[in-house]
Amino acid sequence: MNQDYIKADNWSIIEEGFDINQVKSSESLFSIGNGAMGQRANFEESYSGPTFQGSYIAGVYYPDKTRVGWWKNGYPEYFAKVLNAPNWIGINVEINGEALDLFKCKKVEDFRRELNMKEGWLSRSFKATLQNSTKVKVESKRFLSLDFDEVGAIQYQVTPLNGDAQINFSPYLDNGITNEDTNWDDKFWDVLSVDHKENQAFILSRTMKTHFYVCVAMQSQISINGEVLKEEKKVQKSDKSVEFQYQNKVYKGDTITLAKFGGYVTDRNHDKKDLVSAAKETLNKVSKLGFDSLLKLQREAWSRIWEMADITISGDVKAQQGIRFNIFQLNQTYLGKDARLNIGPKGFTGEKYGGSTYWDTEAYCIPFYLATKNQNVARNLLAYRYHQLDKAIENAQKLGFKNGAALYPMVTMNGEECHNEWEITFEEIHRNGAIAFAIYNYHRFTSDYSYIPEKGLEVLIGIARFWHQRATFSKAKSRYVILGVTGPNEYENNVNNNFYTNYIAKWCLNYAVENIEIVEAEYPSDHSRIMNRVNLSKAELEQWKDVADNMYFPYSEEYGVYLQQDGFLDKELITVANLDKSQRPINQKWSWDRILRSPYIKQADTLQGFYFFEDDFTVEELERHFDFYEPFTVHESSLSPCVHSIQAAKLGRMDQAYTFYLRTSRLDLDDYNHEVHEGLHITSMAGTWMSIVEGFGGMRVKNNILEFSPKIPKQWEGYSFKINFRNQILKVNVGQNDTHFELDGTLAIEIKVNDKLVSIQPNGLVTV
Amino acid sequence: MNQDYIKADNWSIIEEGFDINQVKSSESLFSIGNGAMGQRANFEESYSGPTFQGSYIAGVYYPDKTRVGWWKNGYPEYFAKVLNAPNWIGINVEINGEALDLFKCKKVEDFRRELNMKEGWLSRSFKATLQNSTKVKVESKRFLSLDFDEVGAIQYQVTPLNGDAQINFSPYLDNGITNEDTNWDDKFWDVLSVDHKENQAFILSRTMKTHFYVCVAMQSQISINGEVLKEEKKVQKSDKSVEFQYQNKVYKGDTITLAKFGGYVTDRNHDKKDLVSAAKETLNKVSKLGFDSLLKLQREAWSRIWEMADITISGDVKAQQGIRFNIFQLNQTYLGKDARLNIGPKGFTGEKYGGSTYWDTEAYCIPFYLATKNQNVARNLLAYRYHQLDKAIENAQKLGFKNGAALYPMVTMNGEECHNEWEITFEEIHRNGAIAFAIYNYHRFTSDYSYIPEKGLEVLIGIARFWHQRATFSKAKSRYVILGVTGPNEYENNVNNNFYTNYIAKWCLNYAVENIEIVEAEYPSDHSRIMNRVNLSKAELEQWKDVADNMYFPYSEEYGVYLQQDGFLDKELITVANLDKSQRPINQKWSWDRILRSPYIKQADTLQGFYFFEDDFTVEELERHFDFYEPFTVHESSLSPCVHSIQAAKLGRMDQAYTFYLRTSRLDLDDYNHEVHEGLHITSMAGTWMSIVEGFGGMRVKNNILEFSPKIPKQWEGYSFKINFRNQILKVNVGQNDTHFELDGTLAIEIKVNDKLVSIQPNGLVTV
Repeated sequence: MNQDYIKADNWSIIEEGFDINQVKSSESLFSIGNGAMGQRANFEESYSGPTFQGSYIAGVYYPDKTRVGWWKNGYPEYFAKVLNAPNWIGINVEINGEALDLFKCKKVEDFRRELNMKEGWLSRSFKATLQNSTKVKVESKRFLSLDFDEVGAIQYQVTPLNGDAQINFSPYLDNGITNEDTNWDDKFWDVLSVDHKENQAFILSRTMKTHFYVCVAMQSQISINGEVLKEEKKVQKSDKSVEFQYQNKVYKGDTITLAKFGGYVTDRNHDKKDLVSAAKETLNKVSKLGFDSLLKLQREAWSRIWEMADITISGDVKAQQGIRFNIFQLNQTYLGKDARLNIGPKGFTGEKYGGSTYWDTEAYCIPFYLATKNQNVARNLLAYRYHQLDKAIENAQKLGFKNGAALYPMVTMNGEECHNEWEITFEEIHRNGAIAFAIYNYHRFTSDYSYIPEKGLEVLIGIARFWHQRATFSKAKSRYVILGVTGPNEYENNVNNNFYTNYIAKWCLNYAVENIEIVEAEYPSDHSRIMNRVNLSKAELEQWKDVADNMYFPYSEEYGVYLQQDGFLDKELITVANLDKSQRPINQKWSWDRILRSPYIKQADTLQGFYFFEDDFTVEELERHFDFYEPFTVHESSLSPCVHSIQAAKLGRMDQAYTFYLRTSRLDLDDYNHEVHEGLHITSMAGTWMSIVEGFGGMRVKNNILEFSPKIPKQWEGYSFKINFRNQILKVNVGQNDTHFELDGTLAIEIKVNDKLVSIQPNGLVTV
Repeated sequence: MNQDYIKADNWSIIEEGFDINQVKSSESLFSIGNGAMGQRANFEESYSGPTFQGSYIAGVYYPDKTRVGWWKNGYPEYFAKVLNAPNWIGINVEINGEALDLFKCKKVEDFRRELNMKEGWLSRSFKATLQNSTKVKVESKRFLSLDFDEVGAIQYQVTPLNGDAQINFSPYLDNGITNEDTNWDDKFWDVLSVDHKENQAFILSRTMKTHFYVCVAMQSQISINGEVLKEEKKVQKSDKSVEFQYQNKVYKGDTITLAKFGGYVTDRNHDKKDLVSAAKETLNKVSKLGFDSLLKLQREAWSRIWEMADITISGDVKAQQGIRFNIFQLNQTYLGKDARLNIGPKGFTGEKYGGSTYWDTEAYCIPFYLATKNQNVARNLLAYRYHQLDKAIENAQKLGFKNGAALYPMVTMNGEECHNEWEITFEEIHRNGAIAFAIYNYHRFTSDYSYIPEKGLEVLIGIARFWHQRATFSKAKSRYVILGVTGPNEYENNVNNNFYTNYIAKWCLNYAVENIEIVEAEYPSDHSRIMNRVNLSKAELEQWKDVADNMYFPYSEEYGVYLQQDGFLDKELITVANLDKSQRPINQKWSWDRILRSPYIKQADTLQGFYFFEDDFTVEELERHFDFYEPFTVHESSLSPCVHSIQAAKLGRMDQAYTFYLRTSRLDLDDYNHEVHEGLHITSMAGTWMSIVEGFGGMRVKNNILEFSPKIPKQWEGYSFKINFRNQILKVNVGQNDTHFELDGTLAIEIKVNDKLVSIQPNGLVTV
């Protein structure tokens, strides 16, 4: 954990001073994205120190051949992973014959980096004294356009400070790139052509195996003191790269500026034969606007996002910075425009987890997008799974299930399973439950039932069939059991009767039955269309109900708690507080067997069930379970503290809730898990949002009514958030003494605040 | 399973007819070895069809970089594996300008292979019609010398049948070899020099990383119709190979013969600078003897082995062939001359399992070597573990154990763990028990206690410390539990309280305490030497006893059986008989999770405990457990049928015992598991021996008395075996009506037959 490295600021992420040990971490933290592409905060100029170069294009992946020590039947042959894309940001800078390279300079002063979240750009400035003693000031600014999501823009400026200087800028495109994350060091890209015309250059490439066609392109322009220079450049081409070389003499104190526009057009959005011309057209369009106008559009676009999504916190800059960083990164990663995309756990900030879709989307991200975007965004995320239903059925077949049972993959890019650890791939089956729960959540929040007869019901049926077949009857227990699973707590493998898994399985079976009945009654033509397709008999439905009604749940009479799984009480129940600090994090210090037989919980598991299904339990039950499990929880998953924060707030334990809030909101900024250099934890950022809105704000939707039970940490003066509830915007402003509710809409609504009904008129303000 | 492919014969393994689909299987089945080196039955001449080339040198290994999908703390960085060694058997044969290659011939007739187990040689003969229509008869014979264990000899003969022929023999050495089993396709060998002088050639090579120096050498000679030709050869050298080229015209009906001697000398037995001269000396020695004299010595050497180790079965050729094949292969693999060596599960017949040491040695092989060899052989196998004790302590430390606790590796070549599946590497800890049990077994059989104060006690203490620390106290059960293990049945992972593991843990603790007391009383100087070293307190000993006395064992009152592990009765208890045959073998048909939650047992687990500790249970208890577990056992491990055969015999179920006997004895000959092409199951062959001697013969050693309860399958007329019991040889001859015991020794002994004492005088014969 490094709490002093990022400066506290309400709207920006700021780093001051150059520290080569922080370069890789900053490359993650200062990443930029626009939902269609992403870029780690790599330097434009060359850097010979430790760095993790990463440029990513949403939806462009590569099926890397699986690497495994001991093959098991059912493992996928390939693991689709996000690809490092051709470099478009690079600018070789030569000053008086020496390459600018911060790793090699005599001196670097006044180094400052700012990620301006309000306006959506990244800047960097420093003064460097080169080995040849030339001293220059450098300022760069760049962003990925929200308006034109195939391009980004860079303004790169150098001012010689101690004499006139020969300054050569060589902006380039390069497909000589590799993945950090690769199983066999395979080559991922074939370069098809390298072209340039006037001040534009293009490299057309194709990914191997998946055959995505991508054109990376750039256009560049030089000016001195604001005056555009007539182009006098050389062009250097190789079979994988192209570089424009501008050579200029710059007087002391004058500033030479390179404006570079660049990015990617792909055959996901264009005909493959038109890629170069599409790139050309886009470059023409943005370069005509120019850097400043494009930046103005960027500010306006981000302003529209913040208008809806912002959460303000007053009196606690670090908390404010934390939540905005989370909201900013979520919006950089996924904007909901493209139903083929999803939210990778590291977004566009790294390669770990393959850039793929996990249950994180349904369990953590859906509520954020539901409340801060048009409801189509969440609907697109649901539809993503609907479109992959056939693959989920295939996946289940591989594991021996039949008759249309669907097991959604643990990790996927295109619906196929991409993970190969048997204890997770085959056994962490609770993911299927979250996918059904997201449908329920969507309907609960939006009241849009249409998704279910249109698409959702088929998903629910496939999932119910899986649970029905996966549960087996234990004669010894006279109940249905689910053997051999890994729950949300991945520090247990191959356990029997994981409470969370059994609970969500039962719920899925009941929810499917309930919706089949509703669709039958209210959408008869959908019902018969679906029933024709899935061939579901009354007898099968009866079996589902039997399994749901007779599901086994391990329970301890002594503690009055459901047990995380069979046998949990046989462990040595030593709390985390009594665990030697030198042993933490246990996933870096202990061998796997030791972790498994310990009582330590990686992330909320039984408590995750209490989060999803809180109305099924009393507050006293929650408290008992929280008090039982929280002391064993090591939170070594990013997805853990948010749930605990919400539950601590519900139990009125505001100090604990606040601590968990800081941990979730500043997980990456303060690098709690010593791994931010690998990329950011994007999906858990939605959990941070939940920990304010659902935790402190106490927001719930029950029976079509928005409910709140506002609480506030003592460290804060106030906080506010907005909720798009069924196309009306409710602004909630919580202070230490009261809460204001302000409605931006055309229809009066009734909400509940601390269990009391409150009416709010259109454009009205109510204080409670 | 292919039961007709190998001809039934009492003393030989015979294949008739050439089938390209059987080549790889035959290469395994017809393997030859002499304890120091091994050779798959690859053809001498070139063969372009599917083949698995393998030449192996005992103790020469390579630490291959571990390949793993998802790294876990504690995994070894390297996996020591047996190396394919430079080829010394190769002879390129050219007939009228065409390479002899059975894959490409117009016609192959009268193909016959014989592995003569009585005399220890392999022969092959066939008539081939080449594409150029030349027809030749070919006969080859080869063996690896038991007397000179660094060399083998080949006699290769060709007779042109339909005209005179130009026949060129080119015997060669080649280090252009690769491993079938390699993680990263690394290069394993550096060639240091390629030399030849007169009719000898030498390639000096060094293994990478481990730096074993190996000189592969050959010498060759040509004769026609028995008349040695004056040498007129060309020499062809590359940087990795050397070849002698003999070109001769041979008249129709004449026979040209190449005699080739070759093999390996290594710096395991010689100074590395002397390797070429040592090889030269050895070649001189054996070539002076000549092929026929060397073969005569070979016959005599095998005759001495058979004299002691043979088991005869009359009236059932397949059963006879099976047991001899097992005994032959065991002796080809390990002769007990070198305490640095051990018995790899595939011996010198393949590369799977890395050629390393498993618990197979202690659990299955020790009894065979104890009874059929000088007791030093078994003592050497015990000492092998003693010499690796420090590594076992290091290995336990990696997993968080301390204070000299020792966990022997699952797989090893030099004491370091070589396996990396957490569920086995870290959790299949029962292996530690077998290592202690082997010490007990050795003492029980030989009455030689000296091993324990000298070496064994330190091993027992390290092992006891491991079990003490590995068991934890369950408050819920008020007993010590052992959580998160994999038992002998590897179709369960990460289970709690595996009966076998808990039982052997308890036994190890008690056995260590007992022997500490004996050594203290009877070997006080050893005791103080050891106690100084291990620093063992009375308090620690008390804790061991506490754990042993209060160990938990899962038990079902309903069935009256110990449960294989907690929760076993929650499974769907469908017997193997009710499992669709299309689903077998489940390890090839089912995903791993499905196997894990099934009740199916890969190999004896609870029953393995009943085998080791049979005196702790009544026959009725054995019967109840056998009847409970056997129906769920799929025997997909080679180590399973032998234990079931022994127990079925004990229970008087002779038909079942016979079926299991055939399965274990002909596992490879009949290829029950569809994998013989990968190599033979060497270690389970000792189990076959046990299934006759302990199963049918009912041999036990109790209180220093050899006991028998002879039984005989109805399919047999009789069977006989010999036991070296404390340096006297007892021959046991069991018929349908009576059993003869014949003592070859100088002291009268008392044995028990069916619980009655019987005295046998020196050189006496007793019939019971």
